[in-house]
Amino acid sequence: MTQPITDAGERTRTFTWSDPLATATAVRDLPGLDAIRMVAAGELPPPPIAELLGMSITHVDRGHVVFALEPAEWMYNPIGSVHGGVAATILDSSLGCAVHTTLDAGVGYATSDLQVRYVRALSSTSGRVLAESRVVHSGRRLATAEGRLFGEADGTLFAHASTSCLILG
Amino acid sequence: MTQPITDAGERTRTFTWSDPLATATAVRDLPGLDAIRMVAAGELPPPPIAELLGMSITHVDRGHVVFALEPAEWMYNPIGSVHGGVAATILDSSLGCAVHTTLDAGVGYATSDLQVRYVRALSSTSGRVLAESRVVHSGRRLATAEGRLFGEADGTLFAHASTSCLILG
Amino acid sequence: MTQPITDAGERTRTFTWSDPLATATAVRDLPGLDAIRMVAAGELPPPPIAELLGMSITHVDRGHVVFALEPAEWMYNPIGSVHGGVAATILDSSLGCAVHTTLDAGVGYATSDLQVRYVRALSSTSGRVLAESRVVHSGRRLATAEGRLFGEADGTLFAHASTSCLILG
Amino acid sequence: MTQPITDAGERTRTFTWSDPLATATAVRDLPGLDAIRMVAAGELPPPPIAELLGMSITHVDRGHVVFALEPAEWMYNPIGSVHGGVAATILDSSLGCAVHTTLDAGVGYATSDLQVRYVRALSSTSGRVLAESRVVHSGRRLATAEGRLFGEADGTLFAHASTSCLILG
Repeated sequence: MTQPITDAGERTRTFTWSDPLATATAVRDLPGLDAIRMVAAGELPPPPIAELLGMSITHVDRGHVVFALEPAEWMYNPIGSVHGGVAATILDSSLGCAVHTTLDAGVGYATSDLQVRYVRALSSTSGRVLAESRVVHSGRRLATAEGRLFGEADGTLFAHASTSCLILG
Repeated sequence: MTQPITDAGERTRTFTWSDPLATATAVRDLPGLDAIRMVAAGELPPPPIAELLGMSITHVDRGHVVFALEPAEWMYNPIGSVHGGVAATILDSSLGCAVHTTLDAGVGYATSDLQVRYVRALSSTSGRVLAESRVVHSGRRLATAEGRLFGEADGTLFAHASTSCLILG
Repeated sequence: MTQPITDAGERTRTFTWSDPLATATAVRDLPGLDAIRMVAAGELPPPPIAELLGMSITHVDRGHVVFALEPAEWMYNPIGSVHGGVAATILDSSLGCAVHTTLDAGVGYATSDLQVRYVRALSSTSGRVLAESRVVHSGRRLATAEGRLFGEADGTLFAHASTSCLILG
Repeated sequence: MTQPITDAGERTRTFTWSDPLATATAVRDLPGLDAIRMVAAGELPPPPIAELLGMSITHVDRGHVVFALEPAEWMYNPIGSVHGGVAATILDSSLGCAVHTTLDAGVGYATSDLQVRYVRALSSTSGRVLAESRVVHSGRRLATAEGRLFGEADGTLFAHASTSCLILG
């Protein structure tokens, strides 16, 4: 993950991942809480998206998950800040995993919708941010969750979000 | 953007970007339609997020923008499909740029919220997808837009979305 | 539905409805398109909410329904315009009925979420408004739809919305 | 608000309201917290929508407002439950008023969007429900809030919601 700058001012980043189906297959047969805990602990390989964005899991509890990420220049949009999709991705990760921790082994889920409310732009100087999500409703067919994206250092709020997930029994 | 596979089954990808502030500064002083057209034509450097995800712009008109992206293994989540944040990112890009094309030089915008509805999972075999967005309301303080993410080959719908953007006069 | 004004400047409105379970029971056993057509044609009693707000159905097609309503003083919020809940209610009605028209006899649905984007305030002088909705995705477990609320006279947009509905097979 | 049943099984309800502009005008010149407190205390006439749906305010604090409502047969949709627009209306009321309590005299707001997630149907036997909302972000141009709709007796969750409001300085 070095970021050398070439003569022409270009930067590069290299990331590495492994076959995502190994984790996906293992995850399917585990109680959700165990599955997310194993990913968090590095006992299962992280999914490629985590390598792509440099995301990690810092807390896992039943219905409550926290992800972390370091905003960087290579995430920028054309208007001079970190692209909103990065906040959406880490919030979606923590929301989905929060729901996942409530599911029994063999039960899957699929995100039905994600809504993100942006309240402050992220930049490469924002410092590490945490996406903390909690399940609000855990039903037979549907689960919902809410999350916050804030600065680890001082709690500054950058975005908040909610989701609805279909439970695939 | 080669993806060599190591002995241990690991894959790597390297991407390259340039200082995002060059484009951001140029964009600020242009009518929005001209700015997005220049990015689409490669006359302004693409923002880092476009390099990160391999996104390109395939159509630009006033209030109507299309982005393209090739779903890949390196975008996967822990449950065996392309992470929903990828669809959110390309939809947010096309929605925001559609709004941007309606703005005069010197007028900025900030996404206030993004909602994505997922109707079918993306995988590395989905083929190239297009995110097509159109402005619905263009007001003095707020603009809204709607978008669709579908397969280029056969029009299969994967997600749809809407946004609200604050206009920063 | 007279609106007499008393000495003290008070206004009153009286509305009438019949047992909603009669319609609900009939609706359950009909193909959705037939059910909504019968409600629109007055062959089934309108639901109480339609009497409460003076809503009627002006168009029914498979996946495409239009509701109408006359904004009035008795719908006002404390800040001098028609309450946003009125737009939400008529949009939710047309969105839900649009989904309903795609369902077979014996198949039900439940709205999972509703998002309304308000772009212009409604007042008692806005004139009759139409809420027109179309199904976007019709799946086995979930259906989505989008709608617009606009003035019947000149098409002025007041709000737009989208929904996701759980299909109860 | 009597609900006589006629020979033909028809029910009627009559409600009364006063000129909404009296309250709207008074509200405009007050600090938001004072304005909502005066409406809650009956020192300003309730807005018509409150009479239409039988809504009242049970708690007002800075950034925190609770509304109450009794679900009833006259709020029913055609599929046998209280129309989702009723939950949307009381949640929108509490969300908007929570934002309003944070505003200075002379500062207005307009709801930009409302999203409601329905997790359990309301019926005429649900008992009184409370819509409790809190401001999440209070900015110069935009404020956001989240709310819950739950049974007063046992806390059963029926819906939750979030909003974004434009601040009109």
